[in-house]
Amino acid sequence: MSEHKPLILITNDDGITAHGIRTLVDLMKQLGSVVVVAPNSPQSGMGHAITIANPIRLYPSDIFGDVPAYECSGTPADCVKLAKNHVLKDRTPDLVVSGINHGSNSSISVLYSGTMSAAIEAAIEGIPAIGFSLGDFTHNPDFSHTHEHILAIARNVLERGVERGTALNVNFPARTAEPLKGIKICRQANAKWQEVFDERRDPHGRRYFWLAGDFVNFDTHAEDTDEYALSQNYTSVVPCKYDLTAYTMVDTLKDWDM
Amino acid sequence: MSEHKPLILITNDDGITAHGIRTLVDLMKQLGSVVVVAPNSPQSGMGHAITIANPIRLYPSDIFGDVPAYECSGTPADCVKLAKNHVLKDRTPDLVVSGINHGSNSSISVLYSGTMSAAIEAAIEGIPAIGFSLGDFTHNPDFSHTHEHILAIARNVLERGVERGTALNVNFPARTAEPLKGIKICRQANAKWQEVFDERRDPHGRRYFWLAGDFVNFDTHAEDTDEYALSQNYTSVVPCKYDLTAYTMVDTLKDWDM
Repeated sequence: MSEHKPLILITNDDGITAHGIRTLVDLMKQLGSVVVVAPNSPQSGMGHAITIANPIRLYPSDIFGDVPAYECSGTPADCVKLAKNHVLKDRTPDLVVSGINHGSNSSISVLYSGTMSAAIEAAIEGIPAIGFSLGDFTHNPDFSHTHEHILAIARNVLERGVERGTALNVNFPARTAEPLKGIKICRQANAKWQEVFDERRDPHGRRYFWLAGDFVNFDTHAEDTDEYALSQNYTSVVPCKYDLTAYTMVDTLKDWDM
Repeated sequence: MSEHKPLILITNDDGITAHGIRTLVDLMKQLGSVVVVAPNSPQSGMGHAITIANPIRLYPSDIFGDVPAYECSGTPADCVKLAKNHVLKDRTPDLVVSGINHGSNSSISVLYSGTMSAAIEAAIEGIPAIGFSLGDFTHNPDFSHTHEHILAIARNVLERGVERGTALNVNFPARTAEPLKGIKICRQANAKWQEVFDERRDPHGRRYFWLAGDFVNFDTHAEDTDEYALSQNYTSVVPCKYDLTAYTMVDTLKDWDM
């Protein structure tokens, strides 16, 4: 690690009052100077949304004591943008960490995840970034088994950096009686959510729907995926990039008659 | 094209009353049976957001005459999920088209785009999908120069399909005096938005911010990008995938000491 104390920006998508971000603040204070810019309300499922049709509010918060913190009315991606361009002005963070999310962001969930979109937003800015998520979406889960891996992964990223344009998607299994077996580097499992829309009537007789669903993993025979690692009680690490180009299809398309 | 009339699902992110979706409905009626499920309000910049903390409303709409249409309170990705699982029930569309977006979704904007997230949501479901966007964000732009390319691209996708897990990101330059030169198959340009937060005071004296910014293209010397094609008055087509794994970094990470 370089001589200066690293500057670490922390955000999340569960909101600034969530237990997960508090854990992350406590851990990152061991590694550097911490600044928090996080949503003022839960933003789960916001994906890479940004706020362009409405004004954004930003207020200082003393929720973390002497750690400088701001609560923001925007999305996780907005938080990173505001932090970089307004709060930190000419200081660029050495690391952006997002989370710890209450709930898994493995496999296809990376696309819907506000936690990971904050990390990818940082990657777009050329800042090393990590999103941390725990496979337990309760209000007050036990994060204690994740501490050692969080510190190890963050230390490595601070020392070594990441490939430009990438961010790490780190997922932990929910705590069990057994300790975590270790850290596995993985690819994103090919999976989807099989939606079930729960149809109800409101007190005025009008229909509404709740989005719910079951996770379907098409990669059940593969052992190199994040889902497999998590099922074996490992922490999964998937490097993610924001270039969505499907290079394998570019040449096929060039042969089309258009 | 197969014997049966193809079933084409149409959505967008500018909302069901936008001019762009009306153009797309008129064009797709030439190719198959059309069903529309689109947001009831503008959803620009929603990225791959989904609605999990709130109920979703869905109402039939006669806005397109005899074309079955539904307006939905959710995001573009919600619209595709609701269409597949509720509106169409056991019928799977042969094609999902999204747009025509009022504004470009080329390069990095693909990540923030509700238009493209709807297309990618369809790709997750294994349905061929295309997002169409015009580099003109006015309320009532001239789409007439895009018609021929939209029909050609949609016909090709209906006939040939796409690689499983991909969706096409199609962008058109704004109309000029010159006709479009043709269609170019491209990769996503490496670029970002350099944000400028416009700080103001509301009538109560409280600060707020507008997110604004300038587009910065790091790929100005490359000729294989969507930005280059658009700058030369071509229609750009980028095949996009939802596997975000940065495979080039997997082996590097395996050597880390964690």
